Amino acid sequence: MKIKIYTTGGTIDKVYFDRKSDYQVGDPQAHGVLARANVVLEYEVESIIRKDSLDFTDEDRELIRKRIESSPSERIVITHGTDTMIRTAKVLEGISGKTIVMTGSMYPAQFRDSDAVFNIGCAVTAAQILEPGVYIAMNGRIFNPRNARKNVELNIFEEIE
Amino acid sequence: MKIKIYTTGGTIDKVYFDRKSDYQVGDPQAHGVLARANVVLEYEVESIIRKDSLDFTDEDRELIRKRIESSPSERIVITHGTDTMIRTAKVLEGISGKTIVMTGSMYPAQFRDSDAVFNIGCAVTAAQILEPGVYIAMNGRIFNPRNARKNVELNIFEEIE
Amino acid sequence: MKIKIYTTGGTIDKVYFDRKSDYQVGDPQAHGVLARANVVLEYEVESIIRKDSLDFTDEDRELIRKRIESSPSERIVITHGTDTMIRTAKVLEGISGKTIVMTGSMYPAQFRDSDAVFNIGCAVTAAQILEPGVYIAMNGRIFNPRNARKNVELNIFEEIE
Amino acid sequence: MKIKIYTTGGTIDKVYFDRKSDYQVGDPQAHGVLARANVVLEYEVESIIRKDSLDFTDEDRELIRKRIESSPSERIVITHGTDTMIRTAKVLEGISGKTIVMTGSMYPAQFRDSDAVFNIGCAVTAAQILEPGVYIAMNGRIFNPRNARKNVELNIFEEIE
Repeated sequence: MKIKIYTTGGTIDKVYFDRKSDYQVGDPQAHGVLARANVVLEYEVESIIRKDSLDFTDEDRELIRKRIESSPSERIVITHGTDTMIRTAKVLEGISGKTIVMTGSMYPAQFRDSDAVFNIGCAVTAAQILEPGVYIAMNGRIFNPRNARKNVELNIFEEIE
Repeated sequence: MKIKIYTTGGTIDKVYFDRKSDYQVGDPQAHGVLARANVVLEYEVESIIRKDSLDFTDEDRELIRKRIESSPSERIVITHGTDTMIRTAKVLEGISGKTIVMTGSMYPAQFRDSDAVFNIGCAVTAAQILEPGVYIAMNGRIFNPRNARKNVELNIFEEIE
Repeated sequence: MKIKIYTTGGTIDKVYFDRKSDYQVGDPQAHGVLARANVVLEYEVESIIRKDSLDFTDEDRELIRKRIESSPSERIVITHGTDTMIRTAKVLEGISGKTIVMTGSMYPAQFRDSDAVFNIGCAVTAAQILEPGVYIAMNGRIFNPRNARKNVELNIFEEIE
Repeated sequence: MKIKIYTTGGTIDKVYFDRKSDYQVGDPQAHGVLARANVVLEYEVESIIRKDSLDFTDEDRELIRKRIESSPSERIVITHGTDTMIRTAKVLEGISGKTIVMTGSMYPAQFRDSDAVFNIGCAVTAAQILEPGVYIAMNGRIFNPRNARKNVELNIFEEIE
């Protein structure tokens, strides 16, 4: 079972550029995370977009959908900024025959105490097990994007009751 | 959905005691891993045994089985040394109505590049999704203990073909 | 011998605020670094300013000078943004009887691979050994601020030849 | 000014071998520490011995002394196990014209919260500044080996009063 990991930027891939004294979206971190975890999965990492997800346009989301639709893989993880992850998830609904798990992180993967490694572990596992559909793997849980939101105050994902 | 995490020692919980210039099984690391990952799961961590799994006796495995059988939770993660994880998994077979996912790590959780955080992410996710049964979550995959082994040379878990 | 550590912000203290998808100068990191290094020094950490050093005004530098001049300690470390560290160092020249060592980091202390821990080790050591004067401890070396510059291209401090 | 770093094993270089479920002295960590700290020093790392310092023989200490005596460098750092660091330091006394700074760590350099990076920063700085002689750089301080001991209870180096 081969897993395809598409990266689209977001906090998880943010690095620090001292010359600009700023964070910017850098190289995808997923490959390094999986290599350090010593996984024996067959997987490929492919970058679609490198942006803060607050800056995503409708065209960006269409591009992501097209790339997923035409992907040869049925087991897909997408790393994505958390601010509009749910919005993109809804654009991906209705793609048949594919298990699509979106994840990201609240802190850049390069931080000592980032949630990125844990979240990618969750997403890769969910992608292997779950039925076709679109899911959010954040904060240790698997959410249906129709019933989830990012609670910006608490900096967590939660179910809409 | 509440998850119960039972710890039994193993490499994942090994710390370094300089006075003895030696490692020893220390406090369970699972709680710290989950706290840093900022999970919103309901979970409890409980220590059953603190040993290198090579030193487990039949009584130790019986104790683990009894504790799991009498656990009020149906979603269970067990952290365990990798060397005899599969043997303990087989002792746990046949407990009905519980999803039991075993995990551990090849490097202590306190290492910079440990696989512990990733593996606990995988195990916690699998425990929430899978049907009742006993599973091994290692190296990014979910194994049936009947068809898996630890490849000591490569330091990975793999399917028996 | 007591060491006083004054913090003024800069990259070393930058944290990541996901809600703004932005970094900001946060709590001083020096105390955590020294605690994890298990130092047996007598030291105190005191925050003077929390800014990116590119935003420092002449008034900010005068404030720093006044605080150092009136400091009861003769062994002083200042953590500071790297972009204008040398400019502040020159403002501090001529304070008699005090060994003043400035340091900072190219990557925030909260990063996995930050230079912050190493640099604070260098600065604290230099502050204990060197004669009164103003020094820069960066990139493993001790610079005289009159003969040093930040090479922005290479992201290192170097001697002016 | 070129610095020569000699490694002799000890906790700082201990890695974890899962196959033996044991820590052992592995590859010298000093080079990785200096590379991550982005130093601009000229330096070379050379391994003399790879042992727990509790296992050092008189011959081992003589070997270290001979290597230091014949070293072309006048600025020397030695990484060494903490348990017998002071004993080796005394064997190195009387080598003229060389500043020799010994350091090590209470936790292996590969740990998340090791003191290794900080201690190497201290040692490299002291080696550049101090007059010829033999010194111990541990716990943020520079000790004269004649007046220092490892306090095994507290796991720190301290002055003998």
